[in-house]
This record gives sequence, structure tokens and C-alpha cells, in this order.
Amino acid sequence: MKTIKTSNPKGMRDLITSKMILREYILDIMKGTFEKYGFGPISTPAMENIETLNGKYGDEGDRLIFKVLKSGNFFSEYDSEEDQLNYKKIATKISDKALRYDLTVPLARFVSQHRNEIIFPFKRYQIQNVWRADRPQKGRFREFMQCDVDIIGSKSLFPEIELIQLVDEIFNKLSIQNVKIYINHRKVLMSMIDHMGVSDKFNDIVILIDKIDKLGIRTVEKEMRRVGVSDAGMKIFNKFRNADSISKISNIFTESDIGFEGINELIFIQKVIKEIGLQSSELVFDISLARGIDYYTGSIFEVKQNDISIGSIAGGGRYDDLTSLFGFNDVSGVGISFGIDRIFYLMDDFKLFPDDIGSSTDVLFLNLGLEESVHVLKMIKKMRNLGIASELYPNMDKVKKQMSYADRKGIKFVAIVGEDEIKCNKISLKNMNTGEQYMHSFNDFLKDLQK
Amino acid sequence: MKTIKTSNPKGMRDLITSKMILREYILDIMKGTFEKYGFGPISTPAMENIETLNGKYGDEGDRLIFKVLKSGNFFSEYDSEEDQLNYKKIATKISDKALRYDLTVPLARFVSQHRNEIIFPFKRYQIQNVWRADRPQKGRFREFMQCDVDIIGSKSLFPEIELIQLVDEIFNKLSIQNVKIYINHRKVLMSMIDHMGVSDKFNDIVILIDKIDKLGIRTVEKEMRRVGVSDAGMKIFNKFRNADSISKISNIFTESDIGFEGINELIFIQKVIKEIGLQSSELVFDISLARGIDYYTGSIFEVKQNDISIGSIAGGGRYDDLTSLFGFNDVSGVGISFGIDRIFYLMDDFKLFPDDIGSSTDVLFLNLGLEESVHVLKMIKKMRNLGIASELYPNMDKVKKQMSYADRKGIKFVAIVGEDEIKCNKISLKNMNTGEQYMHSFNDFLKDLQK
Repeated sequence: MKTIKTSNPKGMRDLITSKMILREYILDIMKGTFEKYGFGPISTPAMENIETLNGKYGDEGDRLIFKVLKSGNFFSEYDSEEDQLNYKKIATKISDKALRYDLTVPLARFVSQHRNEIIFPFKRYQIQNVWRADRPQKGRFREFMQCDVDIIGSKSLFPEIELIQLVDEIFNKLSIQNVKIYINHRKVLMSMIDHMGVSDKFNDIVILIDKIDKLGIRTVEKEMRRVGVSDAGMKIFNKFRNADSISKISNIFTESDIGFEGINELIFIQKVIKEIGLQSSELVFDISLARGIDYYTGSIFEVKQNDISIGSIAGGGRYDDLTSLFGFNDVSGVGISFGIDRIFYLMDDFKLFPDDIGSSTDVLFLNLGLEESVHVLKMIKKMRNLGIASELYPNMDKVKKQMSYADRKGIKFVAIVGEDEIKCNKISLKNMNTGEQYMHSFNDFLKDLQK
Repeated sequence: MKTIKTSNPKGMRDLITSKMILREYILDIMKGTFEKYGFGPISTPAMENIETLNGKYGDEGDRLIFKVLKSGNFFSEYDSEEDQLNYKKIATKISDKALRYDLTVPLARFVSQHRNEIIFPFKRYQIQNVWRADRPQKGRFREFMQCDVDIIGSKSLFPEIELIQLVDEIFNKLSIQNVKIYINHRKVLMSMIDHMGVSDKFNDIVILIDKIDKLGIRTVEKEMRRVGVSDAGMKIFNKFRNADSISKISNIFTESDIGFEGINELIFIQKVIKEIGLQSSELVFDISLARGIDYYTGSIFEVKQNDISIGSIAGGGRYDDLTSLFGFNDVSGVGISFGIDRIFYLMDDFKLFPDDIGSSTDVLFLNLGLEESVHVLKMIKKMRNLGIASELYPNMDKVKKQMSYADRKGIKFVAIVGEDEIKCNKISLKNMNTGEQYMHSFNDFLKDLQK
């Protein structure tokens, strides 16, 4: 038999149990909190029709989408003369589905498609994998998990406030300290760029502002000049940059500015958050926060933990027109996306996972022979009925090997039930942390467990 | 802007919140029970290298595997003369990854690849989607969820016993009654087919036995004769078929038969299960249980609920040699796979879902204005701190619309906090089931909640 080499596709990974348990810990806290805030789960298929995804993520995005071959004779529409080995053209003929690239476009498709079943304002969360044919690098994978929360169908600012509270509560529960929630507003940015005299270059300027962290302010200023910002424009830009609070910026705008609306929204959000209070995060206004994605139209967020240079651990914003792509107009939404992988690495690095989430099993019963094991199975049944995770070691291996299994699996207690114990219905329990071993009456032991 | 039609790829589906909550209910019970039995979760990527999957599921399986286009210029290796429009040949050049077809082959790959990190005997569960380009029909989808539990690295029969207990406990917890766990043994089948004089036709006969339910016994007998079973062979087959208990069959075998080992394993499993006792299912020997998949080598299982003709809701068996495909020899495993979709439909049909899993929110606060809402947010914060799922309706819509939101979302209580309530720190609560409405002191209400 030919042996196949065992490996994952490039940039994709397995999760062994010890990692999965930690990730589940994060996800359980997230789900629990989402539901406490009234969000419900949905799921969408891994694949979307290719026309649902194409053109939504720019040229680079299109290139990074994994395309799935048509089933059956996918090559029937290929025409060697017409297609002339142009692979992009060929792809559209041999592939009609693709793997989702994010959860936002599928959400827009979902909301449009199910508009008659959905209860609006629609509060949903979605935790699923997405796939991107990116160059893999440390912490960046071709398959990764996204966790999105959105409120769709409300133009009020309470959804923004709820999302800020949600972010605060989740990172507090995960014991991640020093979290800053940066906030800005697309309309404020629009106004600023207008004042700078380059409103026709909005997207270029936004992308540059978004890169200040990466490229440094000097490079960005140089690039801005190249895009067409004048001396006067640069001066205005720096005036905005140096205004470290919302109120200082609000003085710059007149009521006729589009930024006036944005700044007032920020002031309201900030005021209410201050009144309610956050648990451990801080809400910080940041005029340099831009978020490159072009569907945002209102408030934008980015969440960072600044003790570690891992980039943002969550981010999002308000979009007024996402579903109109699918023929469903005038539906405003706001959402935030949590970076599960980054949160995982951060928690691993800072050792923030509780100690007691290592193993699922409380008690391992040693296998000392056929007869003993059958007796033990009856004990295990009673313990499981009381909710105690317990298992019989299946093989009659040497005791040392069985103990090592318990040790490596992080099991708290090893139970030994041999001939003597069976005779008087007892159980010997060894505490794997302290090494102590005691013999108990099994019935007393059960009673203790029930307490 | 061009409007894109909103639809899912053929045979794939969205899950709206109300369905997701029900599916999560099933999965939570499964996960909780798996962990109580000492199984831990793993996950593998949606995609595998194509050589990992090819040839593992027969010709039909190969055809049904979704293949993913290489990224970049996938067409560079295409050679029009050499490939001559043979699409199967072309596929191997333009695609190097495919979506997983089941969780079993990825498990074998995983175990071989991570053999040095894994703690053996390896008890894992895995709940992930799989994809098959099958013709969609009622209850059969091209993307569906599999839920597999396996114990790898033990030749003892205790894993079989544990899986039978696990199946029993899960269906009992899900309130699915009249569950029968059918059991048979590959070695018993081999022996029987040997006695029938057609051991060279093992696979054909197994596939035919597997189809008795679907085709009826008459058709299967006719087909068996065509495959080469003689009159004497048919007689032996019927002798086996009419033996309704394991002990009656054990009389047919002599110690030199390979079936002797199989029958003794079945006798042991049955004896121990009888001694421990099951909660609500019944373990039934069935000589016609064959399971077409050819990697099984020992005991085989199939679980059915016979009040509904939905086919099996779980199935599995022992395989002695799955990982050797990947160069890891002599590793025996036994596993069972739960059919989540079928279990879902069965529970939906028999109305087995508890009433109280409809909504995640306990209390909806009406939005009666900006000032009231800010006051309410402080109340909500306190309630959420006590673990009460509560939310503010975000828009200042008409009360009727807000009430309808609570009603449709299945929210139990609606809280009304207007000017009067704010003045004396009270809260008016309307029970959405009974229609009763009372005013409470908010602090007393909180104290009640804490109890």
C-alpha cells in the first residue's frame, strides 16, 4: 500500500485537544455574553455562489478567494480558442462556487434573502471559519475563525453603545487588561479630508491614515503630498491629529459640515458610556483610526491591547448600505468582529487561561483486570449520573503506563478498585496533584459528591 | 449598482437563529456527554491535500469530492495535447486541495501526523461540516454536519461498551425513545459468507446484505444467486438470518472459524451491557447489519429509532488498520458517528425540544425616549451582571412594534420604565405569557433575582 505523506494544506492547521479546549473556553465566554445581550446565532454555508463574492473585496481580494471546481465535467464550457489560456477567464467557466472570504458579505446576502423571516432590529452573532489564499506567516493562516456580532435595522446609536459594552465585558471576562477601544467616525474623516482640499481622493487618504501605525507619520505625510495634499491641507491635517479630544475637533466644524453630524454622534456615545461606566476597558477617540474597508459610513472601532504588538483584537463600524448589493435598500447596520486567533495568542502569551480547563476528566479508573473492570463500570455509571466526568482505562496495561495517561491528560484523581476494594465496596483515590491516597466507602464517596 | 440574486449554492443552506438554537441544544448535550466520558475535541481544516482524500471512498466518492482550484495561475500545467480535454486528468493538474468528505480519513491523517503529541488511547470527538457533491434531496445536503467519537489505540472491548453507553445516554438525554442499537461483527459476516461458499465475493455480498432494508429480501436473494451463491449457500444464509440471538449463531461456528472470535466478542459485549444496564435504549444483535464501508474489521453498529422511517441516526464500528494508509501501523480504533441532521428532524417531528430554548433574552426594555433609555441602560447593566439576559429595544418605534419584537423573539418579560418609574426607581414588568403586569421596586427586583 502506498503511504501518503501526512500534512495539512499550506497555511491550514489541525487543533489538538489541548488547544481546542482553550479555544472553546474563549468561544463559550463570547457566546454566553452575546446571548446575554440578546444576540442569536446563525450559520451560513462555507461556499457561496461565486457572483456573491466576486468584486466585493477589491482586486486583491478576488485573487485571494478559493474557488471550487464545478462537479462533473467542469471543462465542458472551456473553449481553447476563445479562452486562450487566460486563467482568470477560464476560472469563471470551470468554477461556480467559492469559499467565503469573510462573514460580512454572507451576512448581507443572508439578511436580504431571509428578510421575511428575520425579526428586525436583527441581532445576530456568527462564529465560523473563513478562507483566504494569503501568503501564510506567523499568526496568519489561510483558514481562520471569525466571530462577528451585528445589529441590523436600527439607525439609533444604542447599538454602538451596546457593542462597546459587549467588547468591554468580554475582554474583562477573559482577564485581558489594558484594553483600549478606539473610536472615530467616517463622517468626521470625510469632513477633515474635505477641509484638507482633497475630498476627491477620500479613499487614498483613508488608506494612508490607516497605515500611520505601520509606515510612520513621516512616510504617510510624504505620500499624502504625492496624492495632492497642499501645505495648507497638511496644516489642517496636523491640527486634527493634534486635537486629542472630541470637543477640540468639534470646534473646527461648523453646522453645515458633514462632520458635524459625526462629531455629535461621537459626543453622545462618549457621554452615555461615561454615564454607564465600563468594567475595565477605556473608550478613546482617535482621529487617525480610519479602517480601510470602504463599506463603513458612520462610527468605526478598533480594539487594542497595547502591551503586546499584535495589532487589533477586534474592530468594526457602521455601514448604511451593505444589503443594497442584494436589492434590500435602506438597512443600516453596525457590527464588530473579534479576532479569535489573536485573542488566543495574547491569552496564551500572558498566561490568562484558568488552570482548571486542562482536562475534561475528573477521575480515571485503572484497569486491573476483566472482572475488576466490569465492577468499576457500574461505579462509573453512578458517578457519571452525578455529572462526574470519569472513565475506565481501556487496556490492561502496566499500572505505570496507566498512571502516565492520567498524568499527561491532566486528570485530577486516579481510582484504584482491586479485589480488596470490591469485597467491601470501597474505592481508593489518589490525588494526582498532592500524591495523597485514601480509601473511601464508595457510598459515602457518592454522598460527598452529591453535596 | 447591479443587484445580485440571493441564493445558496445548490444543496447548501443557511440556519436562521431559531434553528441554530435548536441545533446548539443537541450539540451541547452531545459535547457535555462526550466530555463526561473523557473524550476531548479536535478540529481539522476544511481542506485536505487532494492525495489525502483521493481513492479513499471508491470511484463514486472520488466523483463527489469538491475540488478547490489552485491559487494563482492554476492553468500553467495544463497541456492541451497531453490532456486532450480529459477533465479528470485536468483536475489533477489545476487542483491540489479538496474539501473533506467525512471526518474519518482526516482523523486517520491527524492521528498519524500527531502521533507524538497524542495521548493514547486517544479519545477524541469532532463536530465539523463535510461536503459531498451528491444529488440533493429531502434531508440530504451537500454541506452537512458530522459528529464523530472515536477511541484509538485499544484492542480491548471496553471502548465498544463505552460507546454503547454513550449512545444510550445521549438519546436518553435528548428524550428520544424506542432507540435500538443494532450490533453485528465483521468476522461473523466473513465466517457466514465463507460457510456460504462465496468468500471471494465478500464485498459484493456485504453490500447486498446492507441493502435488504431498501430492496427487500427477495430481490437481495435473487442478486445473491446472480453473484454465485448456491442452493446450499442460500440455505446457510437463511439459517443465519433466522437465528434471532447471538447464542443460536454461536452453535453454528466451530473454534477454528474466524467467526468464533467475533461471536465471542459479541457475547462479551452483550453480557457486560446487560450487567451494567442501559437507560432507555436496547442493544439488539442483527446478522443483517453489514455496513458497506470496507474499513471495518470488528464490531459494527447502527442506531435506529423505529417509529420514523428516517434511516439510522448513528453508526460506526471497529477498524484495525485505518492509519496504516498514512504509515502508522497496528493501531486499532472504534468509533461512532451521529447524524445531526436526522436527529434534528426526528426531534422536530416528535416535538422533543424543550419549550424554554426559544429565545436567549429574558427581559426586553422598551425604548420610550433618549433620557429613559440612558436610565434603563444602567438597570440593564446591573441585571446583566447578575446573568440576566436583557436588552434595550434600540429604536424609538411605536410601542406596538416593540411589543411585537418581544413576542416574535419569544422574550419572557417586557420592562417598561417611563418617567414615573424613573422618579421612584421602579420597574414595570409585563409577563408575555400571562399578560400580567406589575410594578416593582428595582432594588427588590434585583434582590429577588439574586436568590
